[in-house]
Amino acid sequence: MSSKKVAGVLGATGSVGQRFILLLADHVDFELKVLGASSRSAGKKFVDAVNWKQTELIPEFAKDITVSECSPEAFGDCDVVFSGLDAEYAGPIEKAFADAGLPVISNAKNYRREPDVPLVVPIVNPEHLDIVANKLSSLKAAGKSKPGFIVCISNCSTAGLVAPLKPLIEKFGPIEALTTTTLQAISGAGFSPGVPGIDILDNIIPYIGGEEDKIEWETKKILAPLSEDKKSVVLLTDDEMKVSAQCNRVAVSDGHTECISLKFKNRPAPSVEQVKQCLKEYVCEASKLGCHSAPKQTIHVLEQNDRPQPRLDRNRDQGYGVSVGRIREDSVLDFKMVVLSHNTVIGAAGAGILIAELLVVKNLI
Amino acid sequence: MSSKKVAGVLGATGSVGQRFILLLADHVDFELKVLGASSRSAGKKFVDAVNWKQTELIPEFAKDITVSECSPEAFGDCDVVFSGLDAEYAGPIEKAFADAGLPVISNAKNYRREPDVPLVVPIVNPEHLDIVANKLSSLKAAGKSKPGFIVCISNCSTAGLVAPLKPLIEKFGPIEALTTTTLQAISGAGFSPGVPGIDILDNIIPYIGGEEDKIEWETKKILAPLSEDKKSVVLLTDDEMKVSAQCNRVAVSDGHTECISLKFKNRPAPSVEQVKQCLKEYVCEASKLGCHSAPKQTIHVLEQNDRPQPRLDRNRDQGYGVSVGRIREDSVLDFKMVVLSHNTVIGAAGAGILIAELLVVKNLI
Amino acid sequence: MSSKKVAGVLGATGSVGQRFILLLADHVDFELKVLGASSRSAGKKFVDAVNWKQTELIPEFAKDITVSECSPEAFGDCDVVFSGLDAEYAGPIEKAFADAGLPVISNAKNYRREPDVPLVVPIVNPEHLDIVANKLSSLKAAGKSKPGFIVCISNCSTAGLVAPLKPLIEKFGPIEALTTTTLQAISGAGFSPGVPGIDILDNIIPYIGGEEDKIEWETKKILAPLSEDKKSVVLLTDDEMKVSAQCNRVAVSDGHTECISLKFKNRPAPSVEQVKQCLKEYVCEASKLGCHSAPKQTIHVLEQNDRPQPRLDRNRDQGYGVSVGRIREDSVLDFKMVVLSHNTVIGAAGAGILIAELLVVKNLI
Amino acid sequence: MSSKKVAGVLGATGSVGQRFILLLADHVDFELKVLGASSRSAGKKFVDAVNWKQTELIPEFAKDITVSECSPEAFGDCDVVFSGLDAEYAGPIEKAFADAGLPVISNAKNYRREPDVPLVVPIVNPEHLDIVANKLSSLKAAGKSKPGFIVCISNCSTAGLVAPLKPLIEKFGPIEALTTTTLQAISGAGFSPGVPGIDILDNIIPYIGGEEDKIEWETKKILAPLSEDKKSVVLLTDDEMKVSAQCNRVAVSDGHTECISLKFKNRPAPSVEQVKQCLKEYVCEASKLGCHSAPKQTIHVLEQNDRPQPRLDRNRDQGYGVSVGRIREDSVLDFKMVVLSHNTVIGAAGAGILIAELLVVKNLI
Repeated sequence: MSSKKVAGVLGATGSVGQRFILLLADHVDFELKVLGASSRSAGKKFVDAVNWKQTELIPEFAKDITVSECSPEAFGDCDVVFSGLDAEYAGPIEKAFADAGLPVISNAKNYRREPDVPLVVPIVNPEHLDIVANKLSSLKAAGKSKPGFIVCISNCSTAGLVAPLKPLIEKFGPIEALTTTTLQAISGAGFSPGVPGIDILDNIIPYIGGEEDKIEWETKKILAPLSEDKKSVVLLTDDEMKVSAQCNRVAVSDGHTECISLKFKNRPAPSVEQVKQCLKEYVCEASKLGCHSAPKQTIHVLEQNDRPQPRLDRNRDQGYGVSVGRIREDSVLDFKMVVLSHNTVIGAAGAGILIAELLVVKNLI
Repeated sequence: MSSKKVAGVLGATGSVGQRFILLLADHVDFELKVLGASSRSAGKKFVDAVNWKQTELIPEFAKDITVSECSPEAFGDCDVVFSGLDAEYAGPIEKAFADAGLPVISNAKNYRREPDVPLVVPIVNPEHLDIVANKLSSLKAAGKSKPGFIVCISNCSTAGLVAPLKPLIEKFGPIEALTTTTLQAISGAGFSPGVPGIDILDNIIPYIGGEEDKIEWETKKILAPLSEDKKSVVLLTDDEMKVSAQCNRVAVSDGHTECISLKFKNRPAPSVEQVKQCLKEYVCEASKLGCHSAPKQTIHVLEQNDRPQPRLDRNRDQGYGVSVGRIREDSVLDFKMVVLSHNTVIGAAGAGILIAELLVVKNLI
Repeated sequence: MSSKKVAGVLGATGSVGQRFILLLADHVDFELKVLGASSRSAGKKFVDAVNWKQTELIPEFAKDITVSECSPEAFGDCDVVFSGLDAEYAGPIEKAFADAGLPVISNAKNYRREPDVPLVVPIVNPEHLDIVANKLSSLKAAGKSKPGFIVCISNCSTAGLVAPLKPLIEKFGPIEALTTTTLQAISGAGFSPGVPGIDILDNIIPYIGGEEDKIEWETKKILAPLSEDKKSVVLLTDDEMKVSAQCNRVAVSDGHTECISLKFKNRPAPSVEQVKQCLKEYVCEASKLGCHSAPKQTIHVLEQNDRPQPRLDRNRDQGYGVSVGRIREDSVLDFKMVVLSHNTVIGAAGAGILIAELLVVKNLI
Repeated sequence: MSSKKVAGVLGATGSVGQRFILLLADHVDFELKVLGASSRSAGKKFVDAVNWKQTELIPEFAKDITVSECSPEAFGDCDVVFSGLDAEYAGPIEKAFADAGLPVISNAKNYRREPDVPLVVPIVNPEHLDIVANKLSSLKAAGKSKPGFIVCISNCSTAGLVAPLKPLIEKFGPIEALTTTTLQAISGAGFSPGVPGIDILDNIIPYIGGEEDKIEWETKKILAPLSEDKKSVVLLTDDEMKVSAQCNRVAVSDGHTECISLKFKNRPAPSVEQVKQCLKEYVCEASKLGCHSAPKQTIHVLEQNDRPQPRLDRNRDQGYGVSVGRIREDSVLDFKMVVLSHNTVIGAAGAGILIAELLVVKNLI
């Protein structure tokens, strides 16, 4: 017990915060001790401050924790802090935490585009955590006893998209063009208020503010190499990889579906069978390292022609596995396929937990 | 009254047949007199034979019509016959009707790929009806007093797709590549049994049997020119136009949404503003000719960034108008946009009615 | 044209206000000239102030109207004012309008329980408008040149419930006990923000704040007699009529379904056939008086055992007709049946329009 | 391992059969060895015969089992047989199995109304299994080495309804009147074809064939005492308990919601607090006996006014716990409340498993 890392959650009463709490209940590596929220909630018992809206009950251990202000002082004992703060508030708070020597794993978008902040999909690019290792060495060399840093979780629809791309690029070389049309679950919009019921019943909303740009930009960071000094990411250029996204909100509770097409740079392109084989064989580093939440099977290649489906397939490997189906040739680019990922697990809070597990294994927290 | 054309409906008890009946109630050009269905229904009063499942009540005039067998004899007085038969039965029946000198407008797929059978989206390629004019001349010249023929209605998702393409090609030249990812309504699957509720609630089905091939093939026929002798359609080749479709069934009752991307052959490509202007200005021939059901505005170009939406926009111009939104540049092809069309109107029975109105105006029935 | 009454709408940018505007477009009795909304919107063109979210397009005539403040001065030319204001604001504004001599038809709950304010379901208790006639006589006798008053529209789920009760009570005498379990559409909750999508998808919310009390109380006012001097309503007592409601929100866009049971006071109770006959024969006064929006058939008695259904039956008589099905004996009370009504038509804005039409016919505006 | 009872499943490819298989995977008491289905499937490997449609993957152990015919010979080694057969086929097959000395736990309705066949909701009336004990004694006394019998699982909506009634009757005496209006999930209708999507999207179906009668009849058996000789159930009469049900199908995947009202015979009726206390304190016999699947908390009394909700509360205690909320006084009967139960767990396959666990503990198999 005593060897567990002490964890805290920022934005604990929100949608992402509640999921962090669920995932940290009885976790083998972490013991959740501090819950931070807005001044309105601070000082209350968590059970009285939160409007709990999960399908699992609020964990007993969390009920009586007194909610703290989101200040580094309150989180001083933490080995790691998970942030589910809204972008509106996350900026200065997360920076203050890192400056105070706290490792922060953030679901907010605020620091994703900083070249020296790793943007990590844990089943895809854990090697970007080398930036953290590098930074810690420097900070320690500079005599800092408690060096802090920020690691960013990617946008939810980006996470699912890049999962199959990583092994394909490793095996078959650069992807020069990529399109994705997303059919995204409403849980991704949070719940205060999120997507109004009258807008999504018997309907589709063919627009999610900022989402297409996030996909197009983040993909080019997550799949990019590190600089030689391992201090930053060297973004892929448009010449190296063109990405185009069209985003839709649909009446699905959890699970983002993406219809993607891609074209390899190298000719001849691989065969459909080679693509399938490559995806099936992919074992992410987190799995190799034995991280607790890592999927048994990173990518599930489904052969039935009407799969993956969100209701049936979103919970593969507790939501940490990504499902890919309908892999076939495309007459415009090279291949088309359908990718399904669990947006609140590998696309949000769950990714944060697995990133933290990687940091533990890599001795970075 | 006496100047109305006499109409019949094949497959009158089915989903498409019921909509033909609704659209023909109080129609200015047609008087519906004959309803044909399977032997199980034949001989019964229509109201007793049908499991009526429309949001409008069954029209009074139809209730007491005695259902006929689907034989040309029973439809001998008809000037035009609308077929809502399933593909399983449509083949020999529709052929027998045409052979017997009856004009048949069919929603089935059976004859869509015959080069000398027009495949018509009435707001897009009414000029393909010249094949009929040509055939009628020949038949009359050969002394046939009652010349029959078949005109096919396109697949529902193809209809919405080609609507904006037609004016764009007319104005800016060939489209060399086209992708569409569809989010299709469940009404398109009929209702016996159609899509099971448990399969579509909180879910997406990323597959519709045969649909992608239909879109890819039919698009290249509908947008193709006629042969010089106007006897057949000269299909576009893959070199002329590459089409790639990914089809999904979603929890929407009516209205197919399509996220499309396209690339023009000619350089430089037009601007976004030119594309919008071109679509706004398009007036389909059926509108110019004053057809009763023709849309006032063929293509509605929507500027709000979260439109078109099926629940809000599917009924523009009684479902005969197509809505296009989010017209913007695409980093992989030239342009992306979202197209919404009413699958049971312009994509099925409604298209049949407007084709028939065109045939009347063109003196072909 | 010049003989039309001039109308205004308060709360014009809201959900109910938008529907008032749609229903008043091209109305035979009214010409809508004034649109009032909050200070935030006042001064803007309506099209710029409103977030229009109806399935019909915003009417052309309304687009360019400059939005007014909700002050009686701005509505001075109006013969009638329709209020779609939220209860939060409606109280003082509606009172000020009535005091200023303006007839106000209100959808808010604020004045529903005033004994001298008629609470009117227009297909049920138009005779309660006698209170208005009485009041106008007094005011005119007192020399008031422009006498104002308020008439309240009932709660949406109450409207459907009382429709079949009225003819039953007229024919078979008092109902001593009544239970209703409602399955209510989300459009009844408005759209800012209304019911969150994540709360209603694959779900039921077995609670609507204040709704059960509204049904239980309003039913006893709407079905009550007037006092002898016609100055107020004499509420039914619990001894005369017990009403018990259980309210649920379900994933339906429009149309409230209610499963009701009732017990007559008089023995023997009528037969199922007598109940059906009574409902079929009922013609509401608005229909007898020829009001434009009055339903052709006030109550549709459906014999198929799986009807009424919201998607199929909510639009009977443009939403002004109420559907009743599954009329059968009940082993606990006397009868059970299912009642469906269109909550935004007969249960809200539409009721307001029909009340106004009654006021015109009765020479009260 | 060797001490586990051998189990078989009839109707293994169907909706209920698939759930039996999931629940029997890795079960502490049972080892599933025989899977029976129709002749069409018999002889195939299960994985090839089944259209698996569960959110969990098909268990590895089941994939390679060769499907058997539904004959007692094929199930000769079984200690217990779970039947998920449709009522159309269940009658003669289940009888043949029982006659052949096999204990059958059936989800079909065929034998539910036999006085000497226990109809068991395992968290409610396990004492009805005394009929089995009694029968086994007789059979063994008569020299039958392998005595068979049938135990029936109740209808799904009945199971949830009777759960709170049992402790209330035990504590406060007879319930003389009971009404329930159900909002039932579509999974209860199976999936071939089940409820069509077009019928349930944005809709309610206010009718489920035979369901109301099942609820009204089964409730009076499940809550009834055994005869003195413990050979049969002595059905409650209408005078002892009046039950009235109104059933609706709604767009919910799993979880039946019921709005119930009830009136006790004894006066004065208990208080709301007493009712809540009674439900909270109830511990079903299966829990006391330590059955593996028995709920930790039999009835969850929820105090938030908008609960229980199917999406949030259906999985309490793996679906074996029933949730009750909104307990309040009723002006027509004594109390109203909302009951939520998981229809495929405590209302179907799950109940069968828990019944079997009770049979093991009671040494009846």
